[in-house]
Amino acid sequence: MTTLNSTPRADGFHMPAEWAPQTQVWMVWPERPDNWRLGGKPVQAAHIALAKAIARFEPVTVGVSAAQYDNARARLDLPNIRVVELSSDDAWVRDTGPTFVINDSGEVRGVNWGFNAWGGFDGGLYAPWNRDEQVGGKILEIERCPRYAPEDFILEGGSIHVDGEGTLITTEECLLNRNRNPHLFRKEIEQVLGEQLAVDTIIWLPHGLYNDETDGHVDNFCCYVRPGEVLLAWTDDPQDPNYERCHAALNVLQNTPDAKGRTLVVHKMPIPGPLYATQEECDGVDLVEGTQERHPSVRLAGSYVNFLIVNGGIIAPSFDDPLDAEAEAILQRIFPEHEVVMVPGRELLLGGGNIHCLTQQQPAAASR
Amino acid sequence: MTTLNSTPRADGFHMPAEWAPQTQVWMVWPERPDNWRLGGKPVQAAHIALAKAIARFEPVTVGVSAAQYDNARARLDLPNIRVVELSSDDAWVRDTGPTFVINDSGEVRGVNWGFNAWGGFDGGLYAPWNRDEQVGGKILEIERCPRYAPEDFILEGGSIHVDGEGTLITTEECLLNRNRNPHLFRKEIEQVLGEQLAVDTIIWLPHGLYNDETDGHVDNFCCYVRPGEVLLAWTDDPQDPNYERCHAALNVLQNTPDAKGRTLVVHKMPIPGPLYATQEECDGVDLVEGTQERHPSVRLAGSYVNFLIVNGGIIAPSFDDPLDAEAEAILQRIFPEHEVVMVPGRELLLGGGNIHCLTQQQPAAASR
Repeated sequence: MTTLNSTPRADGFHMPAEWAPQTQVWMVWPERPDNWRLGGKPVQAAHIALAKAIARFEPVTVGVSAAQYDNARARLDLPNIRVVELSSDDAWVRDTGPTFVINDSGEVRGVNWGFNAWGGFDGGLYAPWNRDEQVGGKILEIERCPRYAPEDFILEGGSIHVDGEGTLITTEECLLNRNRNPHLFRKEIEQVLGEQLAVDTIIWLPHGLYNDETDGHVDNFCCYVRPGEVLLAWTDDPQDPNYERCHAALNVLQNTPDAKGRTLVVHKMPIPGPLYATQEECDGVDLVEGTQERHPSVRLAGSYVNFLIVNGGIIAPSFDDPLDAEAEAILQRIFPEHEVVMVPGRELLLGGGNIHCLTQQQPAAASR
Repeated sequence: MTTLNSTPRADGFHMPAEWAPQTQVWMVWPERPDNWRLGGKPVQAAHIALAKAIARFEPVTVGVSAAQYDNARARLDLPNIRVVELSSDDAWVRDTGPTFVINDSGEVRGVNWGFNAWGGFDGGLYAPWNRDEQVGGKILEIERCPRYAPEDFILEGGSIHVDGEGTLITTEECLLNRNRNPHLFRKEIEQVLGEQLAVDTIIWLPHGLYNDETDGHVDNFCCYVRPGEVLLAWTDDPQDPNYERCHAALNVLQNTPDAKGRTLVVHKMPIPGPLYATQEECDGVDLVEGTQERHPSVRLAGSYVNFLIVNGGIIAPSFDDPLDAEAEAILQRIFPEHEVVMVPGRELLLGGGNIHCLTQQQPAAASR
């Protein structure tokens, strides 16, 4: 494994937007029975459907533990899906995986962030997380990508979105949380992001979606759809706890010029539900002290914004919700050149995230 | 994973000779305490020295279980060594790995043989072997190489050597053993080898080295050094149980024209020792029923022929034996363009094999 001491910006690398050409998408097999009900079998079925939906557009690599290797290998039976051994603490490769960066001469490298399970012993979701912390490095090593490993800096890939043209969107709720990088001021965090991803402007939304156990990851709330345009989860219901969050975000988005000096166009996406787990669904999850308990009274942070852009496709979650069709129509309108594929997202959501959280795109090297 | 229904020969692929250009060498971390003494720590040190010796010439990938990942990753600390998770039953990737085949247009594929731990329940060395049986497929999947999977055919890579020009050398002791492919006659085995490796002539030596627990793998006894020339383990001592084996092999080699009609030139390599494990070495191995017991009275099948050819180098075992220097000189004379590197092989030998058994070269795609 090659670990570089410089930074991507210094070396001429930057994080491309999600719509830039990709070579493959990484996923990690969901297994832990104290997060996924019924021994993980329902979410594994959903995960397979997701992998196969992506594999229609580009190759997929799924990392799986030795214990679940046979099962995953047998079920992911498409030539376009590669299965490799990769142990983990859970399946959230958006957050545990590397952030890939590219340069103009055809090279791909990775930023291997620190990881503390969304807050460590101060509100994190499980312990230990040592396997998860290694996922990024292992992926880069399989791909023979040199890595940048910013020291003493915690970041999950789901907490950032970029336009590939110098602007990054994140939330204060997550990146300024005392359980991530309490030793750094906002300016210092901006400096690290600037160096590691080659961005010049950081747009700080105050919060993410209500009840998001990641401490408000932006990828469940607001994402770029093209340079200068974002899609924001939205409610007009003042009784919805998301009401203030959405309006505060809109205010920031409309009043913060991006790195190119543009005022952002904000598209709105309705929020499904409110969605809740059933008692039966919660009963299927192992009770283990120190991991997230599931209860039917707790509103789920369901969001159509939690989709993935692939080569020629948009892979978005459906929730068996009356708003599913509207969400699909909005995505198809915003991405007229992409084929929108809705994949059942309820089982994914029950574990605390969705499609974007469970995937990590690997960009193609820019053509020389 | 892509499994092809045709054969390499039908598709224009063949197994290149070991001296053909390579992209990397595969290794698998030795771990099992019922084969490797003292919890595998001495052999791991030898394995590291071996990996680092190879890494001077070309990249190395080492597969390791999740349990030993941290240790292997920390110790294999060279940029030229890649460490990936890969569970196994033991470290013999020559025998569990794929046999790579290439064509003339720059493609690399793999033959993923059946594996039964050198004889299954009829003299095999351990059970279960299900992890080992998957090693070949996993390696090919990591490399995104399509695979051929000849049905119902057991073969270990250590039981064959080829010249890349149509001839293969093997032993009757192994390939005609009833514990490998008892349902096939010699002609049928030749046919499978012909189809899978694109060879036309099979040279059958009666036996391998005395006491080789693989049932006489050719790679511990006789190997190609260039087209038309082989190196044969040799003793002039009629009291040595290898005496008859060596002379019988020489007789075959001198009287069987190869696929190009050449009579082989046979170089001779002295056999070290006789070598034996000490009581202390045997005492360090876990006693587990069904796995190979180690005893100081059992002669070890030590051999200088068990070396690996890499790009520009010969990596050969030394045994702290008076013949080490002569062996090195012979190799340097036979391979004047290669740098001969002797690596301590005793700890490897104690587990039942040596450098060639513990490595698997991946050939470079032929230039278009």
